[in-house]
This record gives sequence, C-alpha cells and structure tokens, in this order.
Amino acid sequence: MRLSQTFIKTLRTAPKDETARGAQYLSRAGFVHKELAGVYDYLPLGLKVLENIKNIIRKELNRIGCEEVLMSSLQNPEPWSKTDRWDIEKMDVWFRTELAAGGELGLAPTHEEPFTNMMRSYISSYKDLPVYAYQIQTKFRNELRAKSGIMRTREFIMKDLYSFSATKEDHDEFYHQVEKAYMKIYQELGIGEDTFETFASGGVFSKYSHEFQTLTEVGEDTIWFNEDKSVVLNEEVLNDEVLNDLGVKRSELTSAKAAEVGNIFTLGEKYSAPLGLVFNDKDGQRRVVTMGCYGIGVSRVMGVIAEKFADEKGLVWPKNIAPFKIHLISIGKAGKEQAEKLYKQHASEILFDDRDIRPGEKFADADLIGIPTRVVISDKTLAKNEIEVTDRKTGQTNLQKISSLTF
Amino acid sequence: MRLSQTFIKTLRTAPKDETARGAQYLSRAGFVHKELAGVYDYLPLGLKVLENIKNIIRKELNRIGCEEVLMSSLQNPEPWSKTDRWDIEKMDVWFRTELAAGGELGLAPTHEEPFTNMMRSYISSYKDLPVYAYQIQTKFRNELRAKSGIMRTREFIMKDLYSFSATKEDHDEFYHQVEKAYMKIYQELGIGEDTFETFASGGVFSKYSHEFQTLTEVGEDTIWFNEDKSVVLNEEVLNDEVLNDLGVKRSELTSAKAAEVGNIFTLGEKYSAPLGLVFNDKDGQRRVVTMGCYGIGVSRVMGVIAEKFADEKGLVWPKNIAPFKIHLISIGKAGKEQAEKLYKQHASEILFDDRDIRPGEKFADADLIGIPTRVVISDKTLAKNEIEVTDRKTGQTNLQKISSLTF
Repeated sequence: MRLSQTFIKTLRTAPKDETARGAQYLSRAGFVHKELAGVYDYLPLGLKVLENIKNIIRKELNRIGCEEVLMSSLQNPEPWSKTDRWDIEKMDVWFRTELAAGGELGLAPTHEEPFTNMMRSYISSYKDLPVYAYQIQTKFRNELRAKSGIMRTREFIMKDLYSFSATKEDHDEFYHQVEKAYMKIYQELGIGEDTFETFASGGVFSKYSHEFQTLTEVGEDTIWFNEDKSVVLNEEVLNDEVLNDLGVKRSELTSAKAAEVGNIFTLGEKYSAPLGLVFNDKDGQRRVVTMGCYGIGVSRVMGVIAEKFADEKGLVWPKNIAPFKIHLISIGKAGKEQAEKLYKQHASEILFDDRDIRPGEKFADADLIGIPTRVVISDKTLAKNEIEVTDRKTGQTNLQKISSLTF
Repeated sequence: MRLSQTFIKTLRTAPKDETARGAQYLSRAGFVHKELAGVYDYLPLGLKVLENIKNIIRKELNRIGCEEVLMSSLQNPEPWSKTDRWDIEKMDVWFRTELAAGGELGLAPTHEEPFTNMMRSYISSYKDLPVYAYQIQTKFRNELRAKSGIMRTREFIMKDLYSFSATKEDHDEFYHQVEKAYMKIYQELGIGEDTFETFASGGVFSKYSHEFQTLTEVGEDTIWFNEDKSVVLNEEVLNDEVLNDLGVKRSELTSAKAAEVGNIFTLGEKYSAPLGLVFNDKDGQRRVVTMGCYGIGVSRVMGVIAEKFADEKGLVWPKNIAPFKIHLISIGKAGKEQAEKLYKQHASEILFDDRDIRPGEKFADADLIGIPTRVVISDKTLAKNEIEVTDRKTGQTNLQKISSLTF
C-alpha cells in the first residue's frame, strides 16, 4: 500500500473521550474511526489486522475439525424465551427492534440459542455427533458504558464456537483440544508468553469455566497466580474452597492486571434440554446433547494487543497480525528509485511512504503506525549499497545489504 | 470436505413458506438455514459460495484503486437527520433500537451518510482526492414482505462502494471504470452473458442511474431491449422522453423478466453538501466533493444465481463460485481407496461423498448440491483404469483416465 494513494492519513488528535493510549493511537494512526461511543469503523489498516487475527483463529479451529458458518444478527424471541434469556431482566444487553410487519426482534449478543435450535435439523442420531461449528460475526451488546476503545464496545466482531457431543467424556476431550488450540492461537497472535488459562466461575454443569487472560496494565481484571504460574485464577473465584481444590495457599499467590481475550465454557444441557436438542444413542435411547461454547473477541483482542504493546511513540504490532511486514521510507532521488523497485517486488507486504514530505514526519508516522520493521533507503545509505533496518519494538537499527532483506 | 464429517446433510423438505425453486434447494442442500422470514444463516457450503463471490468483487475493485473498510451497523441519527433520511416517512426501511444509556439508534440500511461524514476527517484538499472506499458488510432493511429466499431479505450482505471526486469529469471517468469492473465481475460470477447494464431512474444530479439486470424467470423486474441489446432499459423509465434520448422506438423493443444484481448512481452533492464534505481546490476555493455510490448485493447475487440455473434436480453452480470444483463419489472397495488418494491430494477442491450409503442417494445429493463436475470412481471403472466424469449442467458423462483430471 502506498501512503500517497490511501485515503487514510495520521491525525494529530484522537476523539476527546478516547482515554486509553492504544485507543488514541488506533484513531490517530488511521486503524479505526469512532462512529459513536462503543461503535467503531475499521479503516484499511485496521481491517487488515482484523483479517490477520481471523485467519490465525480459523487455521487452528479448522485443524481440530471445526466448521465455519455465519448466523444472522436478527433474532426471533422464541428460542430465547425457552431458555429464559429473552427477558431484559435476565439478559440486560439486548438491543431490541420492531419488525415493520409486526413483532419484536433482538440483535444477537451471543448465539447459543440459534445454534442449538438450528442443530435440531441436523442432529438426530449418535451418528451425527460430534458437531463443532463456529462463526466470526458481529455481536451487539447494549452496554451501559463503553470504554477502552475497541476493547469493550456495543458492536464488535467475535469468533464463537459451539460443540455438540454425545457424552460428557466426548465433550471433555474436545474441550481439552480447544484449550490447546487457544494457546496456539495466542502464541501466533504474539501474546502467548503473557496469556494464561485461568480458572473462572462455572455453572450448573461444571464447577469452573476457563478464561484466557493477557497481562496488561489496562486490563479490567485481576488474576492471581503462584510463582511458576502453574495455577492461575480469576479474582472472582479466589476463595477457600477453590484454593483447596487447586492445592495452593493464598499466601503463595500474587496478582496482576489482565484483560480477558477468550473464554471456554461447559454448557452441558443448559440450552439443549430446553430447546429439545436430543439424539438417539446406540441403544436407541433418546438423550440430550452435551454442549460447550468457546469465544474469542476478535476486535477486542486487537484492542488488547494495541494497548499492551503501545509505547510513547505509538503502536507496536506483533509480526503475524501487523497490517504489513515492512514500513518502507525513501529519502532522496536514488533512494526513491530503489524503494520503488523493492515495493513493486513485494507490494502486498510493504507499507510504502512515498509521500513528498519531510523525513522527520515519515519517521514519526512509522512509529505511530507500528509496522514491525522500518526500512529506510536513502541516497546516503545507497552510496554504500546498504539500507537501514529498524526494529519498531526495540528501536535497534542496523545497516544491511538490500539483498539480505527477508519477507 | 468429507460429507461423512460435515454436520450438514441434505433435507427432504424446505421450510413451508419457501416458494422459489432455488430457495427450496438452498435450504434442502444445506447452503442456508432460515432463521425467520427474510433472515438466513449461511452454512459451510453457503458461506463458501459467499466468500467466492466476495473475492471476485474484491479483486476487480482493488484493481481500479478501491480500498476496503468495514463500517458499523449501529447508526447515530445525527448525520441522517442532516440529509433528511432519519425520518421513517422519508426512509421506511429503518430498524430502530434504543441505547440502554439513552438515545435512539438505527441499523444501517445503506451507508452514504457514515461514509460521507467519516471522510470529513480525511478529505480537506484537492490533494486528498479522489477517494474510492468500499465495504462488504451486513445491511438491515425492515421490508414489509420478504420473498424469494435470499434474494430479498431483511438482513443481507452487500458490497457498497462510495467515490469522492474533485470534479464531475473525474467522477464520470471513475463511473465508467466501475461500469467495466462490474461487467467483469458478472462475467467471472458466471452470469456475464445474461447480465445487462440498464438505464434506470436518476436523481437531481444525473438524469439516469444504471442497474445491472440478469435475465431470469424469477426476476421481479421487467427490462426492455432492442434486437442487438445495445439499448436496455428498466420498465420504470420506458417513456417517450427516454426513448427519444436513447434513439429507439417502442416498437423496436421487447421485454424479459430480470433480477437486479447491482446498481451504480451519480450522487453529485446530494450527501456531501448537507454533511459539509468540502475541499480546497488548486486555487484555494472551497468546493463540495462530488460523490457516486455503487452496490452489489452479495447474498442477493447468490440467490439470483441459485434460481437462474436451478433445474428439476437441484442447484447448478457456475464454476468460479461453486463451493468445490469436484463432487467425488466412490463405489466399491477399490473405488473408495482410489477416491481417498485423490481426495488427499486435492482436499480443498473436492466435496467427497465418503458416506456408507447407496450410490443412488449419493447421485441424487450430488445433483441437489450442484457442484459443476461429478467424478465417480467405482471398482468397475477402475478395472479399465478409468473414472466417470459428469458435467452437472449438461449431464454429459465421459470416461477418462484419472491422471487427466484437471483442477
């Protein structure tokens, strides 16, 4: 992408009510545009980050046999009434709307009910199980307060996976596969080192659920862990019973701020029983399907990563999700010619600042946008047949031969 | 994809209120699931078709310099009030909703206002122009009646492109580029031969807009054309003034049923003037930006194609948008072994019916699903070292060497 050709440009100011540093940078660097409180548009650079995150998630889920679908946002009250989640008192994040033809609809804040309901068309025998279906889709939640930029919004992109198994044992086995797939996903996203699977509150069908929490100062949660981080738990479950379960003492634990980047939950029969999702087992007995659900907030993860790695100069993207691999800057006439050549060879990997502005402005924009590697080609370096390569994260610069640049 | 592994299976019946033949097949073959009237879920095969359509559109738009973004569905009334489109009397397809924190929002039925409004942050000088930005996003329209399956729905996927130009001349040049890009898109989608650019009603800033209409018996529109189809127009503009403009006589025209698959519109200053999208030209004069908008209903096009090509046995997908290239069926033990080998080599291109069911059921499902090429590997054909290849559209079968199969 050529900065001279794209409509986005870096802005001097962020929206006034944007307080988090990463959120300010996302606006100023042209990744997002704030439509209203808690509602954002994704601009070309931001959309590329989202797509990179989505593709990492897809790859790992497809590997463990999950199938991608796309469910609707508009929701019929009926299945939600059966599970007692249509009532605003029971689920307060509903956005409601009226059909012109008559009747109330909701905008899905989550999709347990429609997935469960739909599977009644596809699951009737043990031979149809297991089913693992997910979507990457827009969710709507009528939050009283939206905050921290794209970390907590009223309209956001989420990956939600639902599993349908014949037995608790089959369910548990898949649950563990998802745990492993999630850790691989966070590794690839560049937050693996600082992301922990934590014990969180469960429900009727399992004592615990699990969250994935990433250490960051801007996190809304507090997690507690022992020295080697072999036991990590959410503050909500920090009580004597749980400590006893996990075999640790409160005095062995220390705390840190963290942001939730995923959660997995054993649903058991919570939705399948009221919605009548049953199957005939091998002996011809009717049984209720055992379910699990597994979420990752795609736009939220983008927000967490933006906040976590931002420094005093701007954004710092991990290389697998950065919108481009290289931010290319040319200085001088020969520099420009050589940069044009390099850009044409690797256009899809390079954000090329080919604008006629001062080098200082180009450097400041490169720091703000946060592509992992900055490459400067100037008349001066070219005289030695070299280019200047700078790592955005460490700031380390070295001179190297142009041919040694790897993509 | 292995039919033994996917959760979808072909169903004997479609939803009762699904009257169009293609729509019935889309449900029965497992491409879509009806959530409520005019609201559909896309299942694995259906999502693949949508993605193929999206990627064809993206490729052609990126080629003419368009940039992809993703705008929000939730809409603030403010910009829509300025253009007089917030009022239900003025635009009757709004879905409205209430913020828990107070205030009314709408679900975007189109995006002229948010695009125009956002561009005020990015356009201030003639140097910032032109801008061509598009998205592929979910639209909501509160239609009184939904019909013809996914052809006319309340929630649908649309590509909407908006152009921002300094002058009418610049706008016209880009408009012509889009006309050409659209015809390429329809060619690649497999409906190029039967799709015509038609004259349709215009607005204040241009006498005509243009629609792209595809001949099909299930179309809601009637188009009129002369013998060589060099003049094609929508029935709504079939009047003496227009006939005079186009230099044809009514007696030279014949009519046919067609479905709209795209439209392009010169907006001029209709949105940019009330929303204050202005720029400084070369002489330092403030001028209003000239706009155009260009739509293709992605899920609608999928519906039109399903209806247009469906025959008495099921769906018939054009090869560029089919979910898979080959529908592979094995019969017998040696057939199964050979089919497994072929599948493993080209898994992403093949829908493999590896189920233990009668060959007759497999053939019927293959016809219903409509993958362009059916390949049967049976013990009998293998005895001659051959496979049976059948074209779904023509029904023609021939025997050929396995090695001659192309992907």
